[in-house]
Amino acid sequence: MQNKRILLAGRPDGWVDDTHFTEDTQPVPTISDGEVLLKTLYLSVDPYMRGRMNDTKSYIPPFQIGQPLSGGVVAQVVESKNPKFEVGDTVMGLLDWAQYSVSTGEGLRKVHGGGYPLSYHLGLLGMPGLTAYVGLVEVGRCKEGDNVFVTAASGAVGSVVGQIARNMGCYVAGSAGSDEKVAHLKDTLGFNDAFNYKTVDSVHKTIAGCFPKGIDVAFENVGGAQFEAAIWNMALFGRIALCGMIADYNISREDMPVGPRGMTNLIGRNVTLQGFIVSNYPDAAPKWDAQCRAWLAEGKMTYQESVADGISAAPSAFVGMLKGQNHGKQIVKVSDE
Amino acid sequence: MQNKRILLAGRPDGWVDDTHFTEDTQPVPTISDGEVLLKTLYLSVDPYMRGRMNDTKSYIPPFQIGQPLSGGVVAQVVESKNPKFEVGDTVMGLLDWAQYSVSTGEGLRKVHGGGYPLSYHLGLLGMPGLTAYVGLVEVGRCKEGDNVFVTAASGAVGSVVGQIARNMGCYVAGSAGSDEKVAHLKDTLGFNDAFNYKTVDSVHKTIAGCFPKGIDVAFENVGGAQFEAAIWNMALFGRIALCGMIADYNISREDMPVGPRGMTNLIGRNVTLQGFIVSNYPDAAPKWDAQCRAWLAEGKMTYQESVADGISAAPSAFVGMLKGQNHGKQIVKVSDE
Repeated sequence: MQNKRILLAGRPDGWVDDTHFTEDTQPVPTISDGEVLLKTLYLSVDPYMRGRMNDTKSYIPPFQIGQPLSGGVVAQVVESKNPKFEVGDTVMGLLDWAQYSVSTGEGLRKVHGGGYPLSYHLGLLGMPGLTAYVGLVEVGRCKEGDNVFVTAASGAVGSVVGQIARNMGCYVAGSAGSDEKVAHLKDTLGFNDAFNYKTVDSVHKTIAGCFPKGIDVAFENVGGAQFEAAIWNMALFGRIALCGMIADYNISREDMPVGPRGMTNLIGRNVTLQGFIVSNYPDAAPKWDAQCRAWLAEGKMTYQESVADGISAAPSAFVGMLKGQNHGKQIVKVSDE
Repeated sequence: MQNKRILLAGRPDGWVDDTHFTEDTQPVPTISDGEVLLKTLYLSVDPYMRGRMNDTKSYIPPFQIGQPLSGGVVAQVVESKNPKFEVGDTVMGLLDWAQYSVSTGEGLRKVHGGGYPLSYHLGLLGMPGLTAYVGLVEVGRCKEGDNVFVTAASGAVGSVVGQIARNMGCYVAGSAGSDEKVAHLKDTLGFNDAFNYKTVDSVHKTIAGCFPKGIDVAFENVGGAQFEAAIWNMALFGRIALCGMIADYNISREDMPVGPRGMTNLIGRNVTLQGFIVSNYPDAAPKWDAQCRAWLAEGKMTYQESVADGISAAPSAFVGMLKGQNHGKQIVKVSDE
């Protein structure tokens, strides 16, 4: 039995493309006492992984050239020498981009679908969904009646932010990169307003039009012009939850973008802008899991996935996601259960 | 008796200079029942006033062309038809840049020196001192042992920030615009480290050198390159209290500065950046007043003032302060008590 893996071939300075990845095939590893052999069912591609391709110190170590990339994976135990796991168990963990991997069990969490796709543990019921909850509710201190703005609003995180805000009784407007996505926000996800940031005449004026009283909570996934426009349109005592700046991730160091103008607006309006990493909020996970499952059961939460097929599709799925070609959460289906 | 006043002659687009002010002389006003006539003793020139010279909506209305500027004033009651005030009372209020003014008493607060100069009510015991306390302690959530960075550290606000941090048992480093100011920070105010931002090779590297473990609390008065450098040098869970951005106040709209690069640093380090206006923290005033007087009595708080003489000197004192020519708090002495 062979084990196909995706390795980092080189570090991008600017946009990632196929040349930064390579594939190899190894024998499926054998396991020792205390270990389990895992078959990858689904792997997750997420924006933060772009940062791990750089050789810079961060909250999470960089990927190494010649080594497999890694990230959130849902896998099935196919062989076990660890009494805590049985063959057939489904687990979630941070594992390699490979068809098979070995684990001591450390960091693995048993997961079940509970009527929902197992892949939801990489999205709605996983890190992206929890990120939405933490950023909106804990960092953004969102409350009923707030005016909420979300960028990348149809994405893995943004689509959950918008639905939480809607369920909490907020006015919510979002931006996305295609008319199809904008329609999805309004028609399926219940956004009060939405716009295509690529085609509006002025992002600034469009946001101002959506928020005549200003933005109480801005959930920022994108950076660039939209981030700047949000800064100019915040309400008194507004909060900006700074989750991501995907617009800036693929710009080379030489072309490093200028930052948002108008930071003085934050002073006069007493605005709080807070960057956050979801793993710094460990207490939120059980709260989100319970709340999300309750909303799912009531039909008050939906989740869209783009599924790429096979491990060899992981690099192009990742690059496509960075370019906004996905609809909702981008995952890669590696094997059948 | 004549009343000399300073009026706004025109709105600057970029640097303020003498041409934006004019002086007139009116008869000293007469008062009606319920009013008091006030003789200005000291008036305050503060960075925020530059914003009021623009015709833009903000937390405080703009100055009007042809009308007197106004701001914090310490004055003496010279005539009273208001039972709450007696001739000879000294008061603090937001009053015109004029030798005399009339008030109904609304917004006036009786002040006494208590062994300290009356002008301290425009600085250490007034808005700038309270701003330092609110920004460092309430917004910045400073605690013992924190590593604190202050810009414009020898100024009316920064010099108090540094001393509070020192008194709280923090490591504190600051920046200022002359070697003389830097010496004052180290020798008189007890800063652990300080540098001249105009002469160091790299603000970024200098700050990194001062803070090998990163900055826990940055108190930002300046903006520009120093703000950007602070963003790159924050510690995990750091806080930036955004008080002012004086470097940006005198740049014309066309030349509007780019914002700080590297905002993604705030994400990975879970940093909070909060703009604030001191008037939004009304409960802090009595706490600060008590704490400050206690430190003054113990010799643990000093305050430097630059005093310009006569109301006609107010415009040049204001412009000089914006250019950093002041040492400590810039005030204008208008009349003897």
